[in-house]
Amino acid sequence: MKILVLGGDGFCGWPTSLHLSQLGHDVVIVDNLSRRNIDNELETSSLTPISTMGVRLEAWKELTGKDIRFERLDVARDYDRLLALLENEQPDAIIHFAEQRAAPYSMRSSATKRYTVDNNTNATNNLLAAVVESGQDIHIVHLGTMGVYGYGTAGMKIPEGYLDVEVTTDEGERVSQSILYPTNPGSIYHMTKTLDQLLFAYYAKNDELRITDLHQGIVWGTNTPETELDERLINRFDYDGDYGTVLNRFLVQAAVGHPITVHGTGGQTRAFIHIRDTVKCIELALGSPPERGERVRILNQMTQTHRVRDLAELISSLTGAEVAYVTNPRKEDPENDLHARNDLFLDMGLNPTLLDEGLLLEVTDIAGRYRDRADLGKIPARSTWTRNQAPGVPEKTPTATD
Amino acid sequence: MKILVLGGDGFCGWPTSLHLSQLGHDVVIVDNLSRRNIDNELETSSLTPISTMGVRLEAWKELTGKDIRFERLDVARDYDRLLALLENEQPDAIIHFAEQRAAPYSMRSSATKRYTVDNNTNATNNLLAAVVESGQDIHIVHLGTMGVYGYGTAGMKIPEGYLDVEVTTDEGERVSQSILYPTNPGSIYHMTKTLDQLLFAYYAKNDELRITDLHQGIVWGTNTPETELDERLINRFDYDGDYGTVLNRFLVQAAVGHPITVHGTGGQTRAFIHIRDTVKCIELALGSPPERGERVRILNQMTQTHRVRDLAELISSLTGAEVAYVTNPRKEDPENDLHARNDLFLDMGLNPTLLDEGLLLEVTDIAGRYRDRADLGKIPARSTWTRNQAPGVPEKTPTATD
Repeated sequence: MKILVLGGDGFCGWPTSLHLSQLGHDVVIVDNLSRRNIDNELETSSLTPISTMGVRLEAWKELTGKDIRFERLDVARDYDRLLALLENEQPDAIIHFAEQRAAPYSMRSSATKRYTVDNNTNATNNLLAAVVESGQDIHIVHLGTMGVYGYGTAGMKIPEGYLDVEVTTDEGERVSQSILYPTNPGSIYHMTKTLDQLLFAYYAKNDELRITDLHQGIVWGTNTPETELDERLINRFDYDGDYGTVLNRFLVQAAVGHPITVHGTGGQTRAFIHIRDTVKCIELALGSPPERGERVRILNQMTQTHRVRDLAELISSLTGAEVAYVTNPRKEDPENDLHARNDLFLDMGLNPTLLDEGLLLEVTDIAGRYRDRADLGKIPARSTWTRNQAPGVPEKTPTATD
Repeated sequence: MKILVLGGDGFCGWPTSLHLSQLGHDVVIVDNLSRRNIDNELETSSLTPISTMGVRLEAWKELTGKDIRFERLDVARDYDRLLALLENEQPDAIIHFAEQRAAPYSMRSSATKRYTVDNNTNATNNLLAAVVESGQDIHIVHLGTMGVYGYGTAGMKIPEGYLDVEVTTDEGERVSQSILYPTNPGSIYHMTKTLDQLLFAYYAKNDELRITDLHQGIVWGTNTPETELDERLINRFDYDGDYGTVLNRFLVQAAVGHPITVHGTGGQTRAFIHIRDTVKCIELALGSPPERGERVRILNQMTQTHRVRDLAELISSLTGAEVAYVTNPRKEDPENDLHARNDLFLDMGLNPTLLDEGLLLEVTDIAGRYRDRADLGKIPARSTWTRNQAPGVPEKTPTATD
């Protein structure tokens, strides 16, 4: 298959691009390097020393003989170039990662709220409008988030995208309906993925586009078999308070000698997936597209749920790192249970990578290898959800720049 | 009250601004004149000769002694100026009309799809982010559309915003939930109002903004008591295929000697409201804001439903105009029933302006007075929903430019 990977320079996009190329697909990466530019803005960087796109693709060619091409293009802005790319490349599928993906960054300021809404909504709409205008029958695979559902239910497992409900008619009759699961996003970032859902539903209905929306859990781990081949292929590893996600953040904290910062009571339960399973799920989703005219195919791309404080205590026991319970910068329920279905991927043959001490220690090893690159002052989460929250800074924190 | 009217130069915004000023409120109109600029783009204009904003406000001052101020500002682009305006003016309420509001225009091309999504989503998000950043407790009143609901139900009347459903838990227990009514928009324009709903729900939850969302039916009529005071205050009257809405379009067709163009079988049933009731509803909504922390207050701003072919036949019988059944440029159900609640406004004391021969003929009179300004070639609806639809052009149509 000819596949475009929008956002193919990012944490999920890069290993996905390599995985699909390794499988023999013809991959074109489309990216505006926004993730690297936001690092510049935040004065931080990947803990791992990621190579430039030029070096990455040269190394991949050298090691595997396979070509991946790169188009530097802003999907949210450069509509005409995007359309021309579709017309020239005639892709079979497009993987859409081209969105700002950090909840804390999206809550940092009015400017980042506005950037996140503007970028994510226009990127998605531009892609959809361009596919319609091209007249091509391209399967679109989008990375959504489990966060569209919110983190509580009325007592059922979170289904995959659609919820069966009963409504009562004016005559008192009960009627069953299958509806998009009512959303309850916890940040501006998560909210943009609920907007994406409505865009997808509309274009699937009006234009019969074939769309798969993958509601992904929090990704942990950093390497896949392909990124491990050579240091020039190494994946990014975010450890700062805005882009470092919870499990990986704990692992890097343990590796660099920073307390493991748990927000509030750590009673939040979240869904997780290992980066190896992310790339496998995308492979599976590509192999199982919806038909034209079908509703959006929605799958939960997660394998396990964990309570945050349990993860902190586990990593503490494995590594000896101290756990610091800090103020929660987010506005969220202090405690929640979470049960979600992921039958669709299991039925397709996904063999989940479960939480495992060896895999956890592997991440800590990688983080430890690059610990000198870490700016400890960047670790605490400082973006607050409203003026009533405070940054999640431990009392006695190692301060490098802060 | 100090009230900002975003989009106060438009078809609903202008009479609303005058009505609120007449009631004694301190009104500031904020507009980027986009509606006049789109007329330039479409090479059409209001059937009625609307004055410039300068002349409008001078006439209002001369006739009533009341000042309305005007800020030319693009709410979707000029965030810093919008924020400064909130800080300087400290308004009690903001009415948000600042969105591209024509379904056919939103389906005209990729460019207009993209403009509609970009403008409407960023306008709403900028407003919300600015109110949060200002720290002020401002009541936001937004003009939504009945079109967010779609035009069919499972057999109950369309409720006002929220739907009571039952879900079955994993233990087999039925649990009641009140959810945002599952949306089913019929165009990119309507879809943007479903995105707005999710933005409002998020900011009401996270930031406790006080928001009222008015799901308005199709507006008919053109004058209110205030716009009738002087020709310099006349309201715009759109008759072109993109901006002319169904009932008003039939009335102008009758007035200028163009066949009344009914799309498909005319079996579509839609919700309607007279422009006089629009301005009254906004007055009522302003007087009944939600509390801080309350969910978004959603009201259906409509008074009657009518089937399109019945309206065509009624106007034909009143005026003698011919009815032409033409191809439907829209992708929609050919026939539907529609029943919707509007108890909230009735309970507040709205006395609905119902369909009435006198009021219909008054519109035709106004249209007839300015018939020489009409470009008949602009009347048929030519924006098609997909490549599979065709423009709604009658076989023997008077062609001026076409």
